[in-house]
Amino acid sequence: MLTAKQLRNPELFKKVVDADVAASFIQDGFTVGISGFTPSGYPKAVTLALAEQVKNGRKVKINITSGASVGPEVEEALAAAGAVARRYPYYASAHKSMKKAINSGEIQYYDMHLSHTAQQINFDFLDPIDVCIVECCAITEDGNLILTPGVGNTPVMVKKAKHVIVELNTFQPPELEGMHDIYIQNIPPHRTAIPINDAADRIGTPYVECGLDKIKYIVETDIPDKVVNLKEPDEKSLLIAGHLIDFLKSEVKAARLPENLLPLQSGVGSIANAVLKGFVNSDFKNLTMYSEILQDSVFDLIDAEKIKIASGCAFTPSPNVLKRFKANPEKYKKHLILRPLDITNHPEIIRRLGVIAMNTAIEIDIYGNENSTHVMGTHMMNGIGGSGDFMRNAYLSIFCTTSTAKEDQVSRIVPMCTHIDSTEHDTQIVVTEWGCADLRGLAPRERSRKIINTCAHPKFRDQLMDYVLRAEKEVGGHQPHILKEALSWHIHAQKYGTMIFQ
Amino acid sequence: MLTAKQLRNPELFKKVVDADVAASFIQDGFTVGISGFTPSGYPKAVTLALAEQVKNGRKVKINITSGASVGPEVEEALAAAGAVARRYPYYASAHKSMKKAINSGEIQYYDMHLSHTAQQINFDFLDPIDVCIVECCAITEDGNLILTPGVGNTPVMVKKAKHVIVELNTFQPPELEGMHDIYIQNIPPHRTAIPINDAADRIGTPYVECGLDKIKYIVETDIPDKVVNLKEPDEKSLLIAGHLIDFLKSEVKAARLPENLLPLQSGVGSIANAVLKGFVNSDFKNLTMYSEILQDSVFDLIDAEKIKIASGCAFTPSPNVLKRFKANPEKYKKHLILRPLDITNHPEIIRRLGVIAMNTAIEIDIYGNENSTHVMGTHMMNGIGGSGDFMRNAYLSIFCTTSTAKEDQVSRIVPMCTHIDSTEHDTQIVVTEWGCADLRGLAPRERSRKIINTCAHPKFRDQLMDYVLRAEKEVGGHQPHILKEALSWHIHAQKYGTMIFQ
Repeated sequence: MLTAKQLRNPELFKKVVDADVAASFIQDGFTVGISGFTPSGYPKAVTLALAEQVKNGRKVKINITSGASVGPEVEEALAAAGAVARRYPYYASAHKSMKKAINSGEIQYYDMHLSHTAQQINFDFLDPIDVCIVECCAITEDGNLILTPGVGNTPVMVKKAKHVIVELNTFQPPELEGMHDIYIQNIPPHRTAIPINDAADRIGTPYVECGLDKIKYIVETDIPDKVVNLKEPDEKSLLIAGHLIDFLKSEVKAARLPENLLPLQSGVGSIANAVLKGFVNSDFKNLTMYSEILQDSVFDLIDAEKIKIASGCAFTPSPNVLKRFKANPEKYKKHLILRPLDITNHPEIIRRLGVIAMNTAIEIDIYGNENSTHVMGTHMMNGIGGSGDFMRNAYLSIFCTTSTAKEDQVSRIVPMCTHIDSTEHDTQIVVTEWGCADLRGLAPRERSRKIINTCAHPKFRDQLMDYVLRAEKEVGGHQPHILKEALSWHIHAQKYGTMIFQ
Repeated sequence: MLTAKQLRNPELFKKVVDADVAASFIQDGFTVGISGFTPSGYPKAVTLALAEQVKNGRKVKINITSGASVGPEVEEALAAAGAVARRYPYYASAHKSMKKAINSGEIQYYDMHLSHTAQQINFDFLDPIDVCIVECCAITEDGNLILTPGVGNTPVMVKKAKHVIVELNTFQPPELEGMHDIYIQNIPPHRTAIPINDAADRIGTPYVECGLDKIKYIVETDIPDKVVNLKEPDEKSLLIAGHLIDFLKSEVKAARLPENLLPLQSGVGSIANAVLKGFVNSDFKNLTMYSEILQDSVFDLIDAEKIKIASGCAFTPSPNVLKRFKANPEKYKKHLILRPLDITNHPEIIRRLGVIAMNTAIEIDIYGNENSTHVMGTHMMNGIGGSGDFMRNAYLSIFCTTSTAKEDQVSRIVPMCTHIDSTEHDTQIVVTEWGCADLRGLAPRERSRKIINTCAHPKFRDQLMDYVLRAEKEVGGHQPHILKEALSWHIHAQKYGTMIFQ
């Protein structure tokens, strides 16, 4: 049963219904806003109920907008039921039915820079939101929403939505209250500076403004976020982390970085996790993070007293780490701020603070162009997410990747990327398990040699240099390419499973 | 003879030398900062003298950094003399020797987002500047510099340079004084918000801080900026301008833009010129510009009382327009602000003001990826310049291009771009002489149809749709491509001069 601490206005109790009732409110053709970010702070009960209704014959196809892809109770359940027409702004490959439908074109997926979504909703560039489903810890007396660990685009979606359905999740720690810092920018011509000058600055409210009238239904649930425990870093990830930390040390030595660096941003996944764990064991102190998502490693950095403040739009504690948080919330709370996604990823703030951005690439070409989304140029692995926001605006933009995939048969350093998300203009540093290539100030012909000799797997270096030399000789130009060979490595891999030409 | 109005401290007269003496100060291996931006406000006498010295046997090869490419007295003279080792951050194809040397790899050219250059110089990421040559109207009593019509990256380059050589150009109108608004951002972690909330806001000083000690030499000159009179817009450019203005009107009608729009940014060239001229003849009033470069059409907008304020990092009046300015400087001055390039192109301000960005593409692919730099993926036509800064951060990002080149033998709408400068994530609107495609919120399979049916030349539409349909059927994926055909249109054009397959 919900309590007066969770629903702080007696009127709210009248809105409590079963998930099934709330799901019935969602009509065919609705655009539905979904709270949360990655498997953190997203609705579960209502979307599961809706999926069930559709499986049982209700005809509903909706557009879903959110902060990023969220958990299986949304992505897998609704996509498997065939209940999704359109999806944006992000998708990650964890959800099989969503992946299949996006790559078959059954679901129209619009891949966006995550800093753009909230403002494009606010500008009325995207579909009007009929209903926004928001996971909350509590609702205030005035009907404002205390979110759970994922903020994402919820504040703007709630503002623009005609109706709001709240999932009051009793499994989420109530101590999350006070961690959020909610701020919505005006739209032009009424915008002013965002007053964040330090990753620790708080500029907003601890709740999302909503109001009693907009809340249509409230559904009680206790389903946990589906975060999995991360594996320990593998050998290659540790090598990458080592090269990267050595590079940052050399930048401090050259007086191009302060001793406690500048605010760190780190993407998701095993390499990112290894890099942040690398800081736990380093000599760096008083670090700060101004990142999109905060994963388990942030808690290790707090425990190791390495970090002053970590700002993100969500944190995704795995079950083990959630236990640590619940056992001692005050310890962690003072080091964490949860902001809206358009503020964590805002070019204005990333550039002002001088963020050190570290993200993972699928492949990088010899001139520094990068693919972070499409395998073989066609099949979406995951959206661009915030990597473009951070890499374009960072003080230092660092792409990390292993040099190969598919048991060394596929090189991630290629003549030409099959899809480009961050261009040569945005890539400063490339790190693989073989080393760290500093591309700052280099022309394309210098970059190709630096990337190949430092970052490519040795078994592909000759083949890459052979391409470079022939392209320079046979075609020339500022970025020499032999067009009929530029994508041949990928074509060969599609056909024979390897980029090694015999 | 220079006057006390031009050199406002008697000490300065002792530094006046011939161009030849100043040029002799520049040593082999120097990194030389060059004032100005496009053919506006750049040094001429000293660089011509240096080129002459090199032609006569002096061994000097220098690195040149600047705001953008400038006039022939730098680009052509020094490149033809073989005096350039490295060049950044921009190059445009007007200068044959520079073009040849960049595309042969003889000159190492580093193509940058123009908002990045000043800060990377300030961060010590690029070569330390040995000497900066600055064209001025006057030098103040304290040794501060009153620039001519091009600001570019001069403020930061002067700050970081070991020495400064001033070219005091008596041909430039002294009334330029007071038009500049010079502001240098701190470097992280000491940065704060840039206090511009309106295109008209002035936040800095009318001069570049330098100081008497840093000024090594002063050279008198009266060589005019090499700006050519622009041609009248051709038929296709007028059609593009018409579609674009109709689109903006429909956005006003839909209440997604205010009646006086939002600040305009426009690239350079004949299409950009036609678009701005289109505003002269439109019903729009009280317009503002927050742009990189201000060309002749801005003066027409002022004469037509269409524009309140135009902010840019340079203005490039053609000889005819310069006469208008000289005849009535006060009339134009109150509508013009000249800022540093990193402020005109700053993501923070572009996004805050909600700039409407209009730039020209070389080619655009069926999914909205764009090439603005490399012909056939290899040969540099011109650098990316500010287009990436504006298109990524704009309220509306609009690419304009004719649908074809080479007498309709080459389609500018292609299956896959051979080089990508702005990705699908940054392209909202595409306009050709055939129409305006609004891509906001669309998935790739929707975008391909919209772009082909609205923007491609009718003679290429079937061939494009044939590719799209086969790619969807044979390969599938989120962005279907047949890799072995994706670049075949370009390969065919290289071989046969046409993209029409028979």
